[in-house]
Amino acid sequence: MFDKKILAERTERMGSSAIREILKLISQPGMVSLAGGLPAPEAFPLEIIHNLTHRVLENYGVSAFQYDKTEGFGPLQEALAMHLKKSGIEVQASEICISSGSQGVLDALGKILIGPGDKIAVEAPTYLGAIQAFNPYNPQYISMETDDQGLIPESLEETLKNHDLKFVYLVPTFQNPTGRTIPLDRRKAIAEIIERYQVLLVEDDPYGALRYRGEVVPSIKSLCPQQVVYTSTFSKTFVPGIRTGFYLAPPFIQQWLIMAKQGVDLHTGTLNQALAAEYIRGGFIDEHVPEIIRLYKPRQEALLEAMDEFFPKDFHWTRPEGGMFIWVEGPRSIDIMKVYEEGIKRLVAFVPGRFFYTNPDDGLHTMRLNFTMSDEATLHSATKLIAESIEAAR
Amino acid sequence: MFDKKILAERTERMGSSAIREILKLISQPGMVSLAGGLPAPEAFPLEIIHNLTHRVLENYGVSAFQYDKTEGFGPLQEALAMHLKKSGIEVQASEICISSGSQGVLDALGKILIGPGDKIAVEAPTYLGAIQAFNPYNPQYISMETDDQGLIPESLEETLKNHDLKFVYLVPTFQNPTGRTIPLDRRKAIAEIIERYQVLLVEDDPYGALRYRGEVVPSIKSLCPQQVVYTSTFSKTFVPGIRTGFYLAPPFIQQWLIMAKQGVDLHTGTLNQALAAEYIRGGFIDEHVPEIIRLYKPRQEALLEAMDEFFPKDFHWTRPEGGMFIWVEGPRSIDIMKVYEEGIKRLVAFVPGRFFYTNPDDGLHTMRLNFTMSDEATLHSATKLIAESIEAAR
Repeated sequence: MFDKKILAERTERMGSSAIREILKLISQPGMVSLAGGLPAPEAFPLEIIHNLTHRVLENYGVSAFQYDKTEGFGPLQEALAMHLKKSGIEVQASEICISSGSQGVLDALGKILIGPGDKIAVEAPTYLGAIQAFNPYNPQYISMETDDQGLIPESLEETLKNHDLKFVYLVPTFQNPTGRTIPLDRRKAIAEIIERYQVLLVEDDPYGALRYRGEVVPSIKSLCPQQVVYTSTFSKTFVPGIRTGFYLAPPFIQQWLIMAKQGVDLHTGTLNQALAAEYIRGGFIDEHVPEIIRLYKPRQEALLEAMDEFFPKDFHWTRPEGGMFIWVEGPRSIDIMKVYEEGIKRLVAFVPGRFFYTNPDDGLHTMRLNFTMSDEATLHSATKLIAESIEAAR
Repeated sequence: MFDKKILAERTERMGSSAIREILKLISQPGMVSLAGGLPAPEAFPLEIIHNLTHRVLENYGVSAFQYDKTEGFGPLQEALAMHLKKSGIEVQASEICISSGSQGVLDALGKILIGPGDKIAVEAPTYLGAIQAFNPYNPQYISMETDDQGLIPESLEETLKNHDLKFVYLVPTFQNPTGRTIPLDRRKAIAEIIERYQVLLVEDDPYGALRYRGEVVPSIKSLCPQQVVYTSTFSKTFVPGIRTGFYLAPPFIQQWLIMAKQGVDLHTGTLNQALAAEYIRGGFIDEHVPEIIRLYKPRQEALLEAMDEFFPKDFHWTRPEGGMFIWVEGPRSIDIMKVYEEGIKRLVAFVPGRFFYTNPDDGLHTMRLNFTMSDEATLHSATKLIAESIEAAR
């Protein structure tokens, strides 16, 4: 029978089984989970989707079901060009490529750029899905320091001074796991450094549209367009089940990303792209995103209020202006894995923060809480249970 | 600006620009193309799809639009288990995994199995998409000999004797590009050799359901289940635009294929999988595949008749019992690239066979003709033009 001997050397790095084991525990009956990272199903516009399927059949007919070009379905590229224009991003349709979720372009970036041992700089903590996409290509991760305003520009410069990087990976807006947003002055500093060192920046922006208060901050892409691959997705503004994302890349990078994608899935599902195109063209996205915000904003407020009420005074947490997560830091003395175990006993779950660090020891005292999947009352009682778990774990 | 220096070493192997250049010429107005490999859009069941979208919204609601598990959408795994049972393949739903087209599992196989320089055995000629999926992982290809009955088992044994292989890749039924099917006695010999050498076989079967005459031949998977990854797709029996395929793999291989896929696209589009599930559950697949066959069979017959009428006597071609392609071999003295150029002048196109060989020099005298995309009259006149192009190129 087949065993480890048949695997390529890269394959064993794909493991990451620790968090899988963690997430398995969560699926037991009666568990209240703030561990997930899913959009709320109540936020899915089924009525609109019903309408969109008719529009797709009428407007595109068979071409919504045929093989299509790897770059993306033309009407979606055009609809996105129109849509991005409203947020000040002026690009041609042909500059917008479609990917199978943001995950698809992260894999393709890894594939075309990362050779064994190549260095990539990431925020500490960073998005786990990106690490899973990059790991098979065997990079070396350089962690950059962050504070409540996200990446510290001086840490980026220090990293670039000391390391020859393939690229820098950031989630600058409502980051997963921290919810933090890098403010404009820091973005300008980052753009200046990125340009000066002529390094590639990957700006992953799945949550930017989910803003509950405060002012929109321009993308880093808009500050130094030639140095940045910008990627976003319909998973949070429409539905994740269509696995449709998009990206803007410097032309040289774009052509190789397309080539890589061709070998992986030929193209992203045509029907899914056609639905996304009609979602924009029919004005549904502009109507529906405010509905999603109306659902999530009070949930976030309920979670923050409950944390103010129940969480111990030596804990510190973010108060993001949008997104899906709250990040919690306890005193260095606490072991959040113990809190997690106490939580499971009380039928409440969250993700211990260590899983979001390329060096897990840096995050033993941290946790991520999600607020999109539970209603206000549930968030209130779950927070109380987590606070009790913290006390039990001291 | 960015240039080749930023790329990983593997990336330049992804090129394959020659066939891209070829296919660009084909899109000029007035061109009759037998070059494509697409299913006919007239074969797409739009009425059924309309019905399926309603069934999906009714039966699955929001879960058809949420993130889902990497292995596949449960109802589709179950529907496939039921469907495969009818063709004598008895598997549990959990043994069936969903991929983003067959392409998705070919990429995942490359990723988990192929280290730089590892050897893979392929038929000469073989499917181009598989080569595109495997190339980034830098394998060494070992070509095996074929005749009108497909792979010659002695060539497989010889290859296994002389090389330590990661796996053998075959399209045993109505192969792309040749249309050939390996008969049962050879399949038994292949299964025996595969088992004796304890090597992994990848059996790619996108066309098996498109049989126009003759008897069904059992899959190699059914002859030595423990040694084979079997993969198929809905692209030819339903629609390709949903990018939904599936595979059966030995358990050890399956777990790593799932892990690899998680990093690439998290999962295949949920809506697409739900549509495929309802296509089976509602009995539509059993109704509609015969319709597709009723469309393609006379097209294939028209092409073969026209070739009998117009093609020179020193040319030889396959007469497949199904699939989408006819494979043509001229005398060794002819340069099919010249025929191709003469064809373009006459506004008729096909794919020169050299692109399907890992060693292109072996296929300079060959070509692939597709018959699914054109009606009978067009196939007749196109064949006449190709015959004229052959004479002009002598």
